[in-house]
Amino acid sequence: MKAVLFEAEYAPREGYRLTEREETTHKIRNGSQVWRNPSFSVADLPIPEPKSDEVLIEVKACGYCGSDVHCYETGTEGYVVYPATVAAPIVLGHEFSGVIKKLGSSVTGFRVGDLVTAEEMQWCGECKACRSGLVNQCRTIEEIGFTVNGGMAEYTTCKARYVWKINDLLTRYGDEDKAFEAGAMVEPTGVAYNAIFNEAGGFRPGAFAVVFGTGPIGLCSIALLRAAGATRIIAFEVGKTRAELAGRFGADMVFDPVALAREGRALSDLILEETDGEGADVLVEASGVPALVLPASTPSLAMDGKVVQIGRAPRPVKLDLEDFIVRGATLSASIGHSGFGTFGNVIRLMAAGNIDVTPAITGRYKLENALEGFERLGSREDAKLMIRM
Amino acid sequence: MKAVLFEAEYAPREGYRLTEREETTHKIRNGSQVWRNPSFSVADLPIPEPKSDEVLIEVKACGYCGSDVHCYETGTEGYVVYPATVAAPIVLGHEFSGVIKKLGSSVTGFRVGDLVTAEEMQWCGECKACRSGLVNQCRTIEEIGFTVNGGMAEYTTCKARYVWKINDLLTRYGDEDKAFEAGAMVEPTGVAYNAIFNEAGGFRPGAFAVVFGTGPIGLCSIALLRAAGATRIIAFEVGKTRAELAGRFGADMVFDPVALAREGRALSDLILEETDGEGADVLVEASGVPALVLPASTPSLAMDGKVVQIGRAPRPVKLDLEDFIVRGATLSASIGHSGFGTFGNVIRLMAAGNIDVTPAITGRYKLENALEGFERLGSREDAKLMIRM
Amino acid sequence: MKAVLFEAEYAPREGYRLTEREETTHKIRNGSQVWRNPSFSVADLPIPEPKSDEVLIEVKACGYCGSDVHCYETGTEGYVVYPATVAAPIVLGHEFSGVIKKLGSSVTGFRVGDLVTAEEMQWCGECKACRSGLVNQCRTIEEIGFTVNGGMAEYTTCKARYVWKINDLLTRYGDEDKAFEAGAMVEPTGVAYNAIFNEAGGFRPGAFAVVFGTGPIGLCSIALLRAAGATRIIAFEVGKTRAELAGRFGADMVFDPVALAREGRALSDLILEETDGEGADVLVEASGVPALVLPASTPSLAMDGKVVQIGRAPRPVKLDLEDFIVRGATLSASIGHSGFGTFGNVIRLMAAGNIDVTPAITGRYKLENALEGFERLGSREDAKLMIRM
Amino acid sequence: MKAVLFEAEYAPREGYRLTEREETTHKIRNGSQVWRNPSFSVADLPIPEPKSDEVLIEVKACGYCGSDVHCYETGTEGYVVYPATVAAPIVLGHEFSGVIKKLGSSVTGFRVGDLVTAEEMQWCGECKACRSGLVNQCRTIEEIGFTVNGGMAEYTTCKARYVWKINDLLTRYGDEDKAFEAGAMVEPTGVAYNAIFNEAGGFRPGAFAVVFGTGPIGLCSIALLRAAGATRIIAFEVGKTRAELAGRFGADMVFDPVALAREGRALSDLILEETDGEGADVLVEASGVPALVLPASTPSLAMDGKVVQIGRAPRPVKLDLEDFIVRGATLSASIGHSGFGTFGNVIRLMAAGNIDVTPAITGRYKLENALEGFERLGSREDAKLMIRM
Repeated sequence: MKAVLFEAEYAPREGYRLTEREETTHKIRNGSQVWRNPSFSVADLPIPEPKSDEVLIEVKACGYCGSDVHCYETGTEGYVVYPATVAAPIVLGHEFSGVIKKLGSSVTGFRVGDLVTAEEMQWCGECKACRSGLVNQCRTIEEIGFTVNGGMAEYTTCKARYVWKINDLLTRYGDEDKAFEAGAMVEPTGVAYNAIFNEAGGFRPGAFAVVFGTGPIGLCSIALLRAAGATRIIAFEVGKTRAELAGRFGADMVFDPVALAREGRALSDLILEETDGEGADVLVEASGVPALVLPASTPSLAMDGKVVQIGRAPRPVKLDLEDFIVRGATLSASIGHSGFGTFGNVIRLMAAGNIDVTPAITGRYKLENALEGFERLGSREDAKLMIRM
Repeated sequence: MKAVLFEAEYAPREGYRLTEREETTHKIRNGSQVWRNPSFSVADLPIPEPKSDEVLIEVKACGYCGSDVHCYETGTEGYVVYPATVAAPIVLGHEFSGVIKKLGSSVTGFRVGDLVTAEEMQWCGECKACRSGLVNQCRTIEEIGFTVNGGMAEYTTCKARYVWKINDLLTRYGDEDKAFEAGAMVEPTGVAYNAIFNEAGGFRPGAFAVVFGTGPIGLCSIALLRAAGATRIIAFEVGKTRAELAGRFGADMVFDPVALAREGRALSDLILEETDGEGADVLVEASGVPALVLPASTPSLAMDGKVVQIGRAPRPVKLDLEDFIVRGATLSASIGHSGFGTFGNVIRLMAAGNIDVTPAITGRYKLENALEGFERLGSREDAKLMIRM
Repeated sequence: MKAVLFEAEYAPREGYRLTEREETTHKIRNGSQVWRNPSFSVADLPIPEPKSDEVLIEVKACGYCGSDVHCYETGTEGYVVYPATVAAPIVLGHEFSGVIKKLGSSVTGFRVGDLVTAEEMQWCGECKACRSGLVNQCRTIEEIGFTVNGGMAEYTTCKARYVWKINDLLTRYGDEDKAFEAGAMVEPTGVAYNAIFNEAGGFRPGAFAVVFGTGPIGLCSIALLRAAGATRIIAFEVGKTRAELAGRFGADMVFDPVALAREGRALSDLILEETDGEGADVLVEASGVPALVLPASTPSLAMDGKVVQIGRAPRPVKLDLEDFIVRGATLSASIGHSGFGTFGNVIRLMAAGNIDVTPAITGRYKLENALEGFERLGSREDAKLMIRM
Repeated sequence: MKAVLFEAEYAPREGYRLTEREETTHKIRNGSQVWRNPSFSVADLPIPEPKSDEVLIEVKACGYCGSDVHCYETGTEGYVVYPATVAAPIVLGHEFSGVIKKLGSSVTGFRVGDLVTAEEMQWCGECKACRSGLVNQCRTIEEIGFTVNGGMAEYTTCKARYVWKINDLLTRYGDEDKAFEAGAMVEPTGVAYNAIFNEAGGFRPGAFAVVFGTGPIGLCSIALLRAAGATRIIAFEVGKTRAELAGRFGADMVFDPVALAREGRALSDLILEETDGEGADVLVEASGVPALVLPASTPSLAMDGKVVQIGRAPRPVKLDLEDFIVRGATLSASIGHSGFGTFGNVIRLMAAGNIDVTPAITGRYKLENALEGFERLGSREDAKLMIRM
């Protein structure tokens, strides 16, 4: 079968201390410290065989994620820029959907022919975090498309316990193409869902919201905020395509923070103005540059307001805690999309028509041309690119 | 000015023990024990003068509530059937909107000409409940339209702290008639909002919901459930008009429980079927007959499901707690619509178009013909009737 | 090895519909419908061998649970009275502690010699409930001591993911006997913990509490309420030994509801009196007779009060929902002790000395005399009886 | 009567923009920008007369707060350092207790002779924050001892709705001195309570906690954490007296962060070590230097951990949000002690003996010598100093 294969030279940087597990498995916790001179190819690999607790999935759609691109791009001395866990060689791809082709011997609850998607986070179910229901904090996590082969391939296998049926999406859309594309969007939507509703505890309907960054996660956040009763959504985005999509996803207004800076307009003043002085009840940070946007916006938090940090935060963020103190405000942060029934809820929201995030898909590639997508994503012009089989 | 005046004979039933406050103020805790031979009229009364902390409101719309009708209807020996607090004589009406005509000397934050509505529950702000933010549990509550003169009148006065601006509803609808009618619906919508989001703690978007009874409170519940991310709403209602409205408000299906009983179909089986066996995450009881519907439906609760009891429950309800135990389910109950910023959130939801509950209005009366509405409501055919000035 | 073996005649009652799984596995969902003429013995069985994901535990202490006794007692036509899931023959015992003797090949995180206890509920980790963190609602639950062999034996095996270390209890008590007995109490304490803190959401420190029934679960509830900041605890219990223990566990006063009934004193009046008219913030039902105690006590709920239903509720309970409505009160119910990090928290509370529930142990038996304990428990005089190896 | 009077020269700094309210009332939002050359005296003032909704209190004890000292100390150009709202001249003191001597004409629920304390925050009960139960965020707050005359006096008046009875403290201690001193500690205890339980939502019993800074607020935090089920409390404090008190209040260990810095030991490493690698579930910041302690400690947060920011944060804090992201952690911040029934709960905890915070009092002054206390507090050696009448 064809598959997008990430290969790289194993060359631990001086000073990076490999754990025993890293040495044995080459599942490196910080890829940017070990993997040099990456090469990407659409390789020919054998179709995997599902183990007893796995299913074999014929992949139909698989999104590109920013993380994938970070394995493609290189920084100093030819090392990849991806700073999180990744093994090599590995088949990339963790936002996928497809059809079950084969069931492992002990799998129940699924049938050949089921339309499905899967969680990227392969929680162990055994560690203290997992036993406590905090599976996104699993201490021995495996990740599809990073430490086990992923979905940028004609076929992939996955433990049944990470797999979710999306047959209802076909019922909703009456169209396989759209059903599979929506299915491949469940994972990123789940990331936004988990951040807003599980970790930050949601909000009371009627809330005013702000979203920083309207890439795929920001767009999904807008859709979810609207679907859960936000009454005003103010988005900030520099990219033109993404800004246009923000409106389509439910943002009431979209501003370009760079243009505002040029005009000397403070973000917090603008937000206060656009919320009739009441401030933002929910402030979703999905821009990846919290160090820029949070200090500029926390003075506009409403009483009892919430900052929801989703994007990773590579640099420390200078917060004026007085903004939080006088308002009784909170900041919550999260990672992942697993647990809490999140995939189930996201699929229900799509299947019932409460949200439709497929318009975030701004480009599609055949598997054989998958490498073109990596090139194009580098420009950060697009929202979601997708490989279609 | 014209006003709907409720008068009745003060005749405490034998055995009813009057408190000192009841004797002094005639604010009777259980009207059905004291008020006999009620008479209703559109009387001519002086326009009230606002005290220093009050505003004078020219009323534009005022809904009839089931409670009002219970003062109209009589039971044994000519006593009214209303079992809660009511004084006489009193101007009825607590779901109203209008325009501010005059401000008390110490009132700030309002202007003459502001469109407004008001909370019915006049919490004291001093008792332990109020100090704890539990204003719906105020120990010395006064109630507009029951213990102080209400909104079925050309003018009414109200303490500024219970008044909320609805100018934004005019902006939304561009139509005074609709703005005032929506404004008069804030109170019943607030009752449903308080029950679902404040007291029961809301639900995760994606939830499956059941609503029993689609009178005004049930209809508002449906609108709110949909606006907050419920993905399937199953309604039960015996009245034809109300059942039709339920669909218009967002119910995916509406069943007649009487017809089902005739067919021998168990409510819980039906609910399980219509939720793909997953059960109801939220079960809103707004029928007024929890003794009938709850025992019939709790076997269909989802894991971690919630029963939201809104309707009053005059008779004890026989619950099979095992249904709750094995599911880790909860039952929460509530009264009122005050506190928690509820009126503010409801007005935002209306002003932003997330909900529109005005289609619940199925009949309108001029103030001078207001008594006709009491007659018609007795039939329980309608959803909301409204007096329009 | 020696083990307490429950055997019974497989004789499905007429009308009881066996599922396919029940027919195949003899894991009967409602034991009272199938198991007739039970026989109990201290049998000689081979020491079990741990599978790859299991550990072998040398058992040191194992409590008797009410459920165990329900397998011992028979009702009509010689059927056992236990109405929940149980297989036969089976080694009973699910509240145990011991020492790890052997590790399955894939087990990590444990060492031979570790002192441990284990969850009774063997959640699958695969069903929708488990994926959502609601492991007590697992759809394909197995139960130690009911569907797989349990801890009333010299040795038992258990999947590592249900096992928790209690080495810290030895550090605390400096005494193996007490450490193992405390360890065997983690499970019942966890049941109370899960009910109060996970399912009912806990309470604000300062709360007034009521506990109905001070058997082992009620006693553990008292200890936990006190440890979490309850400032007044009113207990109700008919048994003399249990009533005395209640005081020792932290109850401020203990009443005999039967004596009160004789005196014509209403429970709710008493509770209101003893809480200075403020009512009970938390009302824990652990008596097993909610149909008696809840209707008698809900009028004494505080504003925003909570009923925590722990005991099973074999008969429907007639609740006056008005009591809940006017107070904005809730009722929550729960089953189990797994998930949410509960065992970990209970062990910490014991190891730090915040609670000590071992005084609940009112009788000890050697394994070879274990059957005597079943006889004695029938009298409901004791709190917790324990088998000591 | 005698009273501690704060006077100062009204000299707005250049560039400070006075609001109209500030000009009219001299209630200055940022005292350090307006009040120069402060003078403190024990003055002779007329005994105030309670208004209709007020009570007259004979003060028996009144604590010194850090805020009071900030009015005493001056910085550049002779301006006081207090950066929050304060008027002059004003009678200071907001942590007081005493006996009711007279009731305003409309006051109910109190009697002459009642022992009482009062909230410092005099929420208006009318603004949107107050209507939402968020009284600590009141938009037009008045503050006893800052904008209205306070408790460092023989008598003070206070609106009844801010007053709480502490008669139960006399019952507990059987000693007026201790009852009044405990009563004067309700306010600072309430600040810690509000931060931990209301704003941060509390924690599950069993939690591991860290407290930075064991001045009065930190000590109260330790007492509350222990009373609510924390099983390990690690405190950090530089002052010797305060460090010793920390242990007495329930800290399991107390470290000097300056000494640790000298040894080159990272705070987070130490915390992880002392929590067996599990990290801190709750991290209370009461040191006033969050910019130092938070960045040094967030790597030791447990999964799902919470930072509770109580101390004011005059300088921005550089947070590594990755520490929060990977753990699903939150930061919450708060101000005040009002609402949520907090004073009531704190008084219950004291009256029942769950906490005793009076050992925090390390010095006592007679009213006539009150100025000595201001001098002594400047050294930051003490925990709580108190004026006793």
